[in-house]
Amino acid sequence: MTRERLYLYDTTLRDGQQTQGVDFSFEDKTRIAAALDRLGLDYIEGGWPGANPTDSEFFARAPRTRATFTAFGMTKRAGRSAANDDVLAAVMNANTPAVCLVGKTHDFHVTTALGITLEENLENIAASVAHVVAGGREALFDAEHFFDGYRANPDYALACIRAAYQAGARWVVLCDTNGGALPHDIRKGVKAAVDAGVPGARLGIHTHNDTENAVANSLVAVAAGARQIQGTLNGLGERCGNANLVSLIPTLMLKEPYASQFEIGVTQDGLRSLTKVSRLLDDILNRVPNPAAPYVGASAFTHKAGLHASAIAKDPTTYEHIPPEAVGNARFIPMSNQAGQSNLRERLEAAGITVEKGDPRLALILEDIKAREDRGFAYDTAPASFELVARGHLGLLPRFFDVERYRVTVDRRYNARNERITVSEAVVVVRIGDERLMSVSESRDESGHDQGPVNALSRALAKDLGPYQSSIEDLRLVDFRVRITNGGTDAVTRVIIDSEDGQGRRWSTVGVSANVVDASFQALLDSIVWKLLRDGVEPA
Amino acid sequence: MTRERLYLYDTTLRDGQQTQGVDFSFEDKTRIAAALDRLGLDYIEGGWPGANPTDSEFFARAPRTRATFTAFGMTKRAGRSAANDDVLAAVMNANTPAVCLVGKTHDFHVTTALGITLEENLENIAASVAHVVAGGREALFDAEHFFDGYRANPDYALACIRAAYQAGARWVVLCDTNGGALPHDIRKGVKAAVDAGVPGARLGIHTHNDTENAVANSLVAVAAGARQIQGTLNGLGERCGNANLVSLIPTLMLKEPYASQFEIGVTQDGLRSLTKVSRLLDDILNRVPNPAAPYVGASAFTHKAGLHASAIAKDPTTYEHIPPEAVGNARFIPMSNQAGQSNLRERLEAAGITVEKGDPRLALILEDIKAREDRGFAYDTAPASFELVARGHLGLLPRFFDVERYRVTVDRRYNARNERITVSEAVVVVRIGDERLMSVSESRDESGHDQGPVNALSRALAKDLGPYQSSIEDLRLVDFRVRITNGGTDAVTRVIIDSEDGQGRRWSTVGVSANVVDASFQALLDSIVWKLLRDGVEPA
Repeated sequence: MTRERLYLYDTTLRDGQQTQGVDFSFEDKTRIAAALDRLGLDYIEGGWPGANPTDSEFFARAPRTRATFTAFGMTKRAGRSAANDDVLAAVMNANTPAVCLVGKTHDFHVTTALGITLEENLENIAASVAHVVAGGREALFDAEHFFDGYRANPDYALACIRAAYQAGARWVVLCDTNGGALPHDIRKGVKAAVDAGVPGARLGIHTHNDTENAVANSLVAVAAGARQIQGTLNGLGERCGNANLVSLIPTLMLKEPYASQFEIGVTQDGLRSLTKVSRLLDDILNRVPNPAAPYVGASAFTHKAGLHASAIAKDPTTYEHIPPEAVGNARFIPMSNQAGQSNLRERLEAAGITVEKGDPRLALILEDIKAREDRGFAYDTAPASFELVARGHLGLLPRFFDVERYRVTVDRRYNARNERITVSEAVVVVRIGDERLMSVSESRDESGHDQGPVNALSRALAKDLGPYQSSIEDLRLVDFRVRITNGGTDAVTRVIIDSEDGQGRRWSTVGVSANVVDASFQALLDSIVWKLLRDGVEPA
Repeated sequence: MTRERLYLYDTTLRDGQQTQGVDFSFEDKTRIAAALDRLGLDYIEGGWPGANPTDSEFFARAPRTRATFTAFGMTKRAGRSAANDDVLAAVMNANTPAVCLVGKTHDFHVTTALGITLEENLENIAASVAHVVAGGREALFDAEHFFDGYRANPDYALACIRAAYQAGARWVVLCDTNGGALPHDIRKGVKAAVDAGVPGARLGIHTHNDTENAVANSLVAVAAGARQIQGTLNGLGERCGNANLVSLIPTLMLKEPYASQFEIGVTQDGLRSLTKVSRLLDDILNRVPNPAAPYVGASAFTHKAGLHASAIAKDPTTYEHIPPEAVGNARFIPMSNQAGQSNLRERLEAAGITVEKGDPRLALILEDIKAREDRGFAYDTAPASFELVARGHLGLLPRFFDVERYRVTVDRRYNARNERITVSEAVVVVRIGDERLMSVSESRDESGHDQGPVNALSRALAKDLGPYQSSIEDLRLVDFRVRITNGGTDAVTRVIIDSEDGQGRRWSTVGVSANVVDASFQALLDSIVWKLLRDGVEPA
């Protein structure tokens, strides 16, 4: 049985850029486009040439993609020809193989927002699409507010999309611009478009998540006949975001009837890279990945309930709707007061530590973890620190060194050239075996600039840890996150540090204190100890 | 036309507790239950009596609710009577008006996870439900894995739910336990249940968000006949979460055909409290609220695109699917390189600053904001700092004081009693007019405990700001968030500080530096200056 082709159109770089707090640089756009292309998407919308300097630069130095690289713009304004519209000209001049133009299809917007006649708008659509086609490009028409327009004035909304189709648009994309449509509205609108003479094979769907139905709305549109889905990575996008391609892709490839009925450009290998692609975007945006993200979130295959965890041990399909490996994700059994000893044993096993069933120390570890979490620690997000606590109880935590004291100073002042500078300095006193080592360091990056107290402490520590230095040389602090939380009745600061080493390991540790520097120091110490353990270093 | 009653069942305190990293205390549960009850939900599931000490305590000191307070448990085990099952007894002994028991309906789980015969499982369901009814309680049956079970062995799955119904269950709740079902699967399953003799008025739906369809799955179940929806606040819950009641409630109340067809327990006043209720849960969990959350997120009515923002100014319905006030949310026009001068003027207007259209300083402000954001500042999330930047350009920023220098020290050591302690001390030199003031402070909370360098700086500053002290006396740091981000090519630390005062104002400021202490200090200074401005203090 041959499967029908379903096309995926990514607008992360355009509609995704409308997300509050998101502002892609040229380099960001280039990296994301490459990732989208590797993933196997059919269209990559790069932005709006002429709208801002970054987008203009991005099109001037456009990436070479297997996917159809697409420029976004809007239909020409009334009172001039398509060839004489400078906004449209900037879009055409980007010389992309495809051009997507947004135009109005809701009568209210034509008269209120544009202030032109309904007839003028129809002509703008037809002339603009024809201009793109005449320029030898693939033309797409984004039918703005189509579903609201169809509800308000069905004849006019349908006339608009017919005008685009008849002018030669390869795709007429029905947009739920305000995001308020529900699945039954989408089904009705898509069916009406097909009945009005635009074939499903020429219809696309563009939804927003304002009622949390963007994914379902995309699926129902496909069921009603549409053959192109527009969306973004991680559901980025204006307001509540666009349809999340990261959720849609596995559903289309792994779930019936989609998997049997349709073929998309993403391969099974591409699917296995999905978790990585999703995290890459977060990384570029400096966002903490959403642990609850469908398919790719850190919690998506996490089994906290004791009953679930024990059934999973017998057969993972009991509580997993797909195998996590299929999307490049992994199963996780977290620690918590709801988890039983069997969860704990699995977690330790994953860290290479085997403990017999019924070992009384298991209960002690669970109790200690619980007590520490009550004080503000968060071991679910800091598995490396969890491992150290467990090792402590099991007698598997070598004493590499002790910190006797430290002092860190931050000075801000004006220097001789009247420039405002900060200087951070740390003194650390460490005991390794019988030796007492005192060392001092200023904080500095490669160019000698101050990096703050945690960096100063880390550098002073690295000096002091003489025998261990070769192991910690490639340790790098990648991120640290600070939150005020409750430790019992008092507010405390929780610091989570993500570290990396030259072997590609990445681990997270936690520190808790009312003092942000001390909380960071604790997490830093845990990170170093965990690294020494993983490298198999013997205590001096 | 009378509307049919649709019931909402909240499981935030039970299934929501399965979220990775969530661990409610007794006080948390009490606060959340009160909020759920005020909101107007019909059922509040409090937890599983006997499963852990917190849940047992919560039921022992149960809140008085207008909603039907419900205990969760599981059907009796095979080989003993319902009366002799100690797990079930603990649930019954909680003495709640309703009891919800989960039981298997998927043959594979009966034989694999439970290891009993299909017949025994049917008997366990019937006997357990009958036991609850005989105890004078309202009985609910959670049909675990119903949709997977219906696909695998439809006759058996239907036999299970009929057994519960015939034994007197008020509600038979069809659960998509693994979260893998799509809307068409849900429609089919609910219809089959109705056809098998369980009336829709006795059917509930319980979905999970593993394919990002939990909300759509709940809606389609109602369309197919179900009359109870189970879900959680903010979609909390195991793995990817449960159906999000915060998204479902406004859809059911404001969107057709639901609004005309159904009545729920939430009033329009309750609906207007929704944003607050959603934030309260985040507050209890110490989570940053999801800005993209449908209806209640900070970005849900944020209009970043310049074209959208100018249309909104003409008529908000052009780009808003509902009025934000209906759910207690608000419109927001952020600053960014995509925003035009009209957005900027609106933002300034909101801060009480009127600037004429076309004022050349508007372009200067936009440029400066853009340049600062390139260095790592984030003004969308720190509107108070944005206001100060704009005021600087407009000549509306009085010079209250200058900081000549500061020095902050953190010492960690062991005291005479061999306790590990930290001491933080700050020296700040400030000029106010012609006066040069130097002061020093240790960090300490009310009980004298160290609170770290930012607290020490804040206390030293407060001492120095003599003439302004009465104004900043009620200033309180509520939260601070730290992220590593990119300032141009270098990694820098961005600190966002949320402050509050005695008049109920809450504002956010930002500081950026490679040094976390200095970034905090900048945000702290902005916070103080903004407060002095808002209080109308004259510079000394």
